[in-house]
Amino acid sequence: MRKAAITGSGVFTPSQTITNDELVAAFNAYADRQNAAGAEPPVPHSSAAFITSASGIERRFVLDKEGVLDPDRMYPSLPPRADDQPGVMAEMALDACGKALDMAEVAPGDIQAVLCAASNHERAYPAIAIEIQELLGTSGFAFDMNVACSSATFGIQAAADMIRAGSIDRAIVVNPEICSAHLEWRDRDCHFIFGDVCTALVLEADDLAQGPRFTIESTRCATKFSNNIRNNDGFLRRTRDQMEDRRDMQFMQNGRKVFKEVLPMVSAHIGDHLNAEGVSADELRRLWLHQANKSMNDFIGRKVLGRIPSPEEQPNILQNYANTSSAGSIIAFAQHSDGLSPGDRGLICSFGAGYSVGSVLVTRAGPA
Amino acid sequence: MRKAAITGSGVFTPSQTITNDELVAAFNAYADRQNAAGAEPPVPHSSAAFITSASGIERRFVLDKEGVLDPDRMYPSLPPRADDQPGVMAEMALDACGKALDMAEVAPGDIQAVLCAASNHERAYPAIAIEIQELLGTSGFAFDMNVACSSATFGIQAAADMIRAGSIDRAIVVNPEICSAHLEWRDRDCHFIFGDVCTALVLEADDLAQGPRFTIESTRCATKFSNNIRNNDGFLRRTRDQMEDRRDMQFMQNGRKVFKEVLPMVSAHIGDHLNAEGVSADELRRLWLHQANKSMNDFIGRKVLGRIPSPEEQPNILQNYANTSSAGSIIAFAQHSDGLSPGDRGLICSFGAGYSVGSVLVTRAGPA
Repeated sequence: MRKAAITGSGVFTPSQTITNDELVAAFNAYADRQNAAGAEPPVPHSSAAFITSASGIERRFVLDKEGVLDPDRMYPSLPPRADDQPGVMAEMALDACGKALDMAEVAPGDIQAVLCAASNHERAYPAIAIEIQELLGTSGFAFDMNVACSSATFGIQAAADMIRAGSIDRAIVVNPEICSAHLEWRDRDCHFIFGDVCTALVLEADDLAQGPRFTIESTRCATKFSNNIRNNDGFLRRTRDQMEDRRDMQFMQNGRKVFKEVLPMVSAHIGDHLNAEGVSADELRRLWLHQANKSMNDFIGRKVLGRIPSPEEQPNILQNYANTSSAGSIIAFAQHSDGLSPGDRGLICSFGAGYSVGSVLVTRAGPA
Repeated sequence: MRKAAITGSGVFTPSQTITNDELVAAFNAYADRQNAAGAEPPVPHSSAAFITSASGIERRFVLDKEGVLDPDRMYPSLPPRADDQPGVMAEMALDACGKALDMAEVAPGDIQAVLCAASNHERAYPAIAIEIQELLGTSGFAFDMNVACSSATFGIQAAADMIRAGSIDRAIVVNPEICSAHLEWRDRDCHFIFGDVCTALVLEADDLAQGPRFTIESTRCATKFSNNIRNNDGFLRRTRDQMEDRRDMQFMQNGRKVFKEVLPMVSAHIGDHLNAEGVSADELRRLWLHQANKSMNDFIGRKVLGRIPSPEEQPNILQNYANTSSAGSIIAFAQHSDGLSPGDRGLICSFGAGYSVGSVLVTRAGPA
C-alpha cells in the first residue's frame, strides 16, 4: 500500500489582534450599558486574569476587530461581496494554500483534490472548495467537509485514503475557520475562546515526494454524539419561522461536561492508536494537539507521555491564536515542526464538537 | 488493491406529494394576490403543461405540503425540535439507512463510517452524520460533506477509497435532501424543480460481501467553478447585517447556461471514464443519471450510448420525485437495478452545482 506524506503547510493569520484586556474592556462596556438599561439579572463583568488562568489564551486574531469590540454590536462586520468576488473563506484559503504549495514546491495544477474541511461554511453551493480550486488553479475535484474541531484531521485521513487507494497523487486539505462569526461575544462564559485563521496542508504520495516531509504512518478517526457543543443555525431557520437570532444559533457549550467527557476519550484514543501501531509513547518526539485549553493539553500530554512534556515536545499556540477549531493542531504543526530528525515520530491530534477525535501518526522523512 | 462494493440501498420517501396541478394552483393564487396588491411588474401565472414539457416532472414529494401550498407562506413549515430530539435530516436518514442495512444484511455495529453527503446541512455542529451514527448504532466515525448535486457520488468515491486503502471495511453514504427548504417556491422559473427525499447506500469491501452486489470498478470526480447555480445563505449573514431573507439566499440558477455548459462536461466526463477503464459504451447495461431534467438525461444517454437508450437502460425517476439534488441518481439506482445479470455493467452519474460531475462504474456481482 502506498503511503501519503505531508510535504507543505501554510497558515493565514489575520492582521488584527484582540488582547484579553481589549476584549474585557469591550465586554465590560457592553455589560455596563446592559445594566444601565436595567438588565435582569445584571450582566457581570469579565476578567482578563480569569481568561488567562482558565484557558491559557492571551490574545486572538480576528478578521474584524472593530465590530467585535463595538459594545453596540459585539460581532464582526464582514460586508457582503458580489458573486464574482472571492468569498471570505476562499480568500483566506488562497493565502494559506499558496504558502503550503510553495513549501512543498508543488505546482497548483499537480494538486488533484481540494478538501475544504472546516466547522462552518460560508454558503451551501457552489462548494467553497471548488472556489478555492478555481482561485488556485488546481485540477481534479474539490468538496467541502465538516466535522467541527476535527475537520482537519478527518480531512487528512480522507485525503490520505485517496492517495493510498491510488485515486489521486496529491491533495490540499484547507481549514478556513471564521470562528468570530459563530461565537457569541456577549456571553461572558465563552466570549474569549475563539479566533480566526486558515491552515492548509499539501499531501502527496510518499513515493513522489523528494524533499523533507512527514510520512503519514497511520490515521485514526472516532466520533461519539454529544450535544454539549452545539450550534442550531442552519438553512432550516426559515422553515422554523426563526429568522431572528437566538442564543443557540451561535456556539453553545457545556464546558464542564466537555472537559470531563472528552479528556478520557482523547487519552484512550491516542493510547489505542499508538498500541495498534506498535509505537511506544517514548518514541513520540512531538505532540501537536488541538488548541482549545491549556489545562486540557497539559492533561493529555502528561497522560499520553506518562510525564510532563517539555514545551518543545508539546507546543501550544493557543496563547496567541485562542481556539481556532479545526485549525489549531495544524497551526501548532506548521509553526513547530522544526528540530526533528529523519525517523523521528510525532502525532497530530484534534478533538472537540461531535464529539470527535482524530489522530495522525507521522514520521519525519527525507533530507535532514 | 481491495475493491469496494455496493451491497445495500434504501430510499426514504416523504408521505406527502404535490402534483403539478396542485403546485400551479397555489402559485397562481399567490400571483393573483401579489397582482391584486399592485405587484410591478405583475407576477405571471405558472402552467402545469409547461412544467411537464420543460422538465419531465409530474409531481414531487415534500416534508410539508401545507406550508408550500399556502399562498400566504410558500415554504415548508418544519417546527423547531428540542436538542434531545432527532433532527429532520437524521430522522430521514434513519429510515433510508435502515432499509439499506436490511438489504445488505449488515449489522449497524459493523459499519465503521457514516458520510452524510448532502447539498445543505441542518446545523454546523455536531455533524449530522454523527447524530445518524448515534441513532443507527454504527461504530467508528462520521462526518458531513457537501458538493451539492454530486454529494452522493463524491461520497461513494471517498468511502470506496477508505475501503480500498484498508482504513475501514464498511461504510454508509447517506443523502438527506430537504430541497423544499432552499427552493424559492415564489419564483415561477424554478418553483417546480425540487422535491425532498433521502437515499442511503451500504458499501463493503468486495471480498467481505457474499450476496448480490454491485462491485465498484472505478470512480471519477471532477469540479469546475461556476456561479450559475448558487445559494448565498450561510453563517456569515449576521456579520453582513443580512438577517432578513433575500432572493439569493435560496436556490438561484441560470438554467440556460447550466444546460449549455454542463451537458458537454458530463458527456466528455463519462466518455473519458469509460475509455480509461477500457469499457465500451456498448457494454453498459444501465445508466443511472442525475435526475434534474428529462431533456438533459435524454441528451446524455444518447451521447454516451450513441443511440436512444431504452427506458429500461436509462431509468428516470424525476417524473415522480422531481430534482432531489444528490439523491436523484441513487433513487434511480435503488429502484431500477433489478434485471441485471452477474457481469453486467452500469454507471451511476451525478452532475450539477459547483459545477460537479461524479461517475461510478459498477459490475453486478455475486449470486444471480
